[in-house]
Amino acid sequence: MNELTMNLKTHSKIPLYEQIYNYIKSDIQNGKIAYGEKLPSTRALAKHLEISRSTVELAYEQLLSEGYIESEPYRGFFVAQIEELYHLQKGKITSAKIYKEKKKYKYDFTPNGVDLKSFPYNAWRKLSKDILMDDKTELFRAGDSQGEYGFRNAICNYLYQARGVNCTLDQIIIGAGSDYILMLLSTILGIHHRIAFEDPTYKQAYRMVRSLSYETAPVPMDKNGMKVSELEKSGADIAYVTPSHQYPTGVIMPLKRRLELLRWASQEEGRYIIEDDYDSEFRYKGKPIPALQGYDGEDKVIYLGTFSKSIAPAIRLSYMVLPKPLLEVYDQKSRFVNSTVSKVDQMIVQKFIEEGYYERHLNKTRALYKSRHDVLIEGLRPMMDICKISGEHAGVHLLLTFHNGMSEEELIQRAEAEDIRVYGLSDYCIQEKYEGNATILLGYANLSEEQIREAVQILNCCWKK
Amino acid sequence: MNELTMNLKTHSKIPLYEQIYNYIKSDIQNGKIAYGEKLPSTRALAKHLEISRSTVELAYEQLLSEGYIESEPYRGFFVAQIEELYHLQKGKITSAKIYKEKKKYKYDFTPNGVDLKSFPYNAWRKLSKDILMDDKTELFRAGDSQGEYGFRNAICNYLYQARGVNCTLDQIIIGAGSDYILMLLSTILGIHHRIAFEDPTYKQAYRMVRSLSYETAPVPMDKNGMKVSELEKSGADIAYVTPSHQYPTGVIMPLKRRLELLRWASQEEGRYIIEDDYDSEFRYKGKPIPALQGYDGEDKVIYLGTFSKSIAPAIRLSYMVLPKPLLEVYDQKSRFVNSTVSKVDQMIVQKFIEEGYYERHLNKTRALYKSRHDVLIEGLRPMMDICKISGEHAGVHLLLTFHNGMSEEELIQRAEAEDIRVYGLSDYCIQEKYEGNATILLGYANLSEEQIREAVQILNCCWKK
Repeated sequence: MNELTMNLKTHSKIPLYEQIYNYIKSDIQNGKIAYGEKLPSTRALAKHLEISRSTVELAYEQLLSEGYIESEPYRGFFVAQIEELYHLQKGKITSAKIYKEKKKYKYDFTPNGVDLKSFPYNAWRKLSKDILMDDKTELFRAGDSQGEYGFRNAICNYLYQARGVNCTLDQIIIGAGSDYILMLLSTILGIHHRIAFEDPTYKQAYRMVRSLSYETAPVPMDKNGMKVSELEKSGADIAYVTPSHQYPTGVIMPLKRRLELLRWASQEEGRYIIEDDYDSEFRYKGKPIPALQGYDGEDKVIYLGTFSKSIAPAIRLSYMVLPKPLLEVYDQKSRFVNSTVSKVDQMIVQKFIEEGYYERHLNKTRALYKSRHDVLIEGLRPMMDICKISGEHAGVHLLLTFHNGMSEEELIQRAEAEDIRVYGLSDYCIQEKYEGNATILLGYANLSEEQIREAVQILNCCWKK
Repeated sequence: MNELTMNLKTHSKIPLYEQIYNYIKSDIQNGKIAYGEKLPSTRALAKHLEISRSTVELAYEQLLSEGYIESEPYRGFFVAQIEELYHLQKGKITSAKIYKEKKKYKYDFTPNGVDLKSFPYNAWRKLSKDILMDDKTELFRAGDSQGEYGFRNAICNYLYQARGVNCTLDQIIIGAGSDYILMLLSTILGIHHRIAFEDPTYKQAYRMVRSLSYETAPVPMDKNGMKVSELEKSGADIAYVTPSHQYPTGVIMPLKRRLELLRWASQEEGRYIIEDDYDSEFRYKGKPIPALQGYDGEDKVIYLGTFSKSIAPAIRLSYMVLPKPLLEVYDQKSRFVNSTVSKVDQMIVQKFIEEGYYERHLNKTRALYKSRHDVLIEGLRPMMDICKISGEHAGVHLLLTFHNGMSEEELIQRAEAEDIRVYGLSDYCIQEKYEGNATILLGYANLSEEQIREAVQILNCCWKK
């Protein structure tokens, strides 16, 4: 019989039963109490330690449930074989490659910014807490591979009201981010396609499609978006477009061009349009144009949307709306792929939409970005003799096209010398050389109005020298 | 000037300022107060409603921040153009396809079960709450595409201590589930490979690999796992294996076979072994055998692990450990792919590991499964004249191979007639016809000890008729 003298701290934050549990566990792990040895009875140990018997019972129960001790009826508690048990020590930080730190700029006009100060943390925390209080086991069971029913329904309603997308919730598939959605889509489409991209384009999607082993074709743009005549010539059977706000040029595709695109798709079987509605949420002028998908009467449009831009980048939540023929293919070929989004996260965003937080958040960030947009336009006025603005009616960036003879590189370097980061259009071009006038992108989602005012004043000086 | 008479409920749960906000918002949305109209001053409205001025100010601020009204200095508040604003109504449930309900059985011996009653809900909720209280904006900013540094470090330590995996945290890549990890891996490896699978095998991975357009080759097993001589003949350059607990046969690959496999891989450049350590967490006899990866001196093993089995299926969290040459390919070709797991989820599981919850949870579920395992073995004793048990030393299922002349189909049907679901080995076979004796899988993770006792007694009767 083991005496088990231990030094219990009655004023500690750690409950007594847990101190006893820790003490005995570590003695078993260290071999101080060996396999097969009998522990004192709960009554004896309680007396010995001058504490209540139920406290000791609690400690023994914990040890029992984790397999450190075994109970033998009428005989008492014995130390178990613990070879198979996990015993994890606090780890050290293992060596890690040091990546070159990215240079930090005083002003960074990144076109991919999201203002996180306006994120409704309290609402998010509350929803998260409420959901974890609810029906427990169901929440951790494997979910619907397409995404949870209620969440798809909330998205379906949102898309109909806000974007004019016509679909049933069966057509919606949830996934952890837009890159993943493209991966999943490729298991549905198969890889033997040539996919046309607007040039310049959203490089992340272009790279993803390339890395999925697709052939691609860059198709030039005019002021209305992808040139359908060039698309026809490209030999592509799938067109990847961003009609609501072309990235990066900011072109909003007019209805006429949308209908031309749809006509192109309907002319041959197996042609599809991928409509990436990436940052359709922010518009500053005129009525919204419904999504291309809403005009599609022939099941030709695959619609992609995401919450990463409209809520927060770390929310890994995107979705696609499949046209019915592809939904059948999904059912046969890809439904077996498990969902990549946890049920908890799906339910948080579902409630976020249903309880009106999303609407408020969208209107709030839109108002915020609109103010920054207005301040930027105002600040750029003195520069209108050397450049012109375009793509300013939506999204969170605009473009400046220069006619003062400076090259894109020079413009970027002059800004950099003043600790300001700006972005050149040629980074977004697929074809090697960008032919037009030097064009700079300025994103304003990540800068305060004050910062925008300051930075634009400096740019005005350094670009006019 | 609008008079704005509204019926405020002082005893409502909804704060007064929110009632005012809701009232004015809906009047603007309905067009009752038109664009350009002036709102009463905060002082006038407060007086009119007999409430404090600060309450009205709060309501106006909210309307302002969401873009419903605009303030003009020295003139007051005016209704804004709201065409661009989001106005989402509560949606209805749209029609949804009715999928055929799966038949529910009284006893279901699924080999893929996870006991969710033992899930540490309180710990999980606490960690989740703590994390959402912490550094806010950082949590919602885009994260490391490989997975968060601290989380990878926690996994690295766990893998070293519990599985003998040798790696640095640079080699670990996090992803939302094992299906996704295979998708990502395919962007690294490219698709021009032939991948060998153990036959019978884990069909989910097999199907995933097929849908990624790979050629595959089934390779027969003997009692030590995949036959390396047959692997050699198959022409495959990648072998997908489950050495710690072959799924579904339960074979634990002995060291000798592991070394043969590694030798096969080292014989030709570009050969790799994918080690799926899927349910290595539960072993009931003898010391654990370290992962194959731990013996790999030539950077030939791609190690796959998951938390979906050891924590909960709805936790979409898996990872792979890349050998160094493939890590370089990842850096060049696939690092641009954004992470599929939210930072919050990564941090919850990181703390879950670091604060000892994972160790405790593993030991607890292991003890639980061990008891069920023991009860099942005990219950099966009277059946030992018609079948023999195999694959019982690890995982959460075992196999029964029959020599009473009954076919697999007959065994399943007789069980089904008694409302018991059992699983046939042939479902896991890649080659069309399974040649051996009828073999049944019995999983015990989802059944209580009582249920196991009852069901086995019934099976004993119906299989002996």
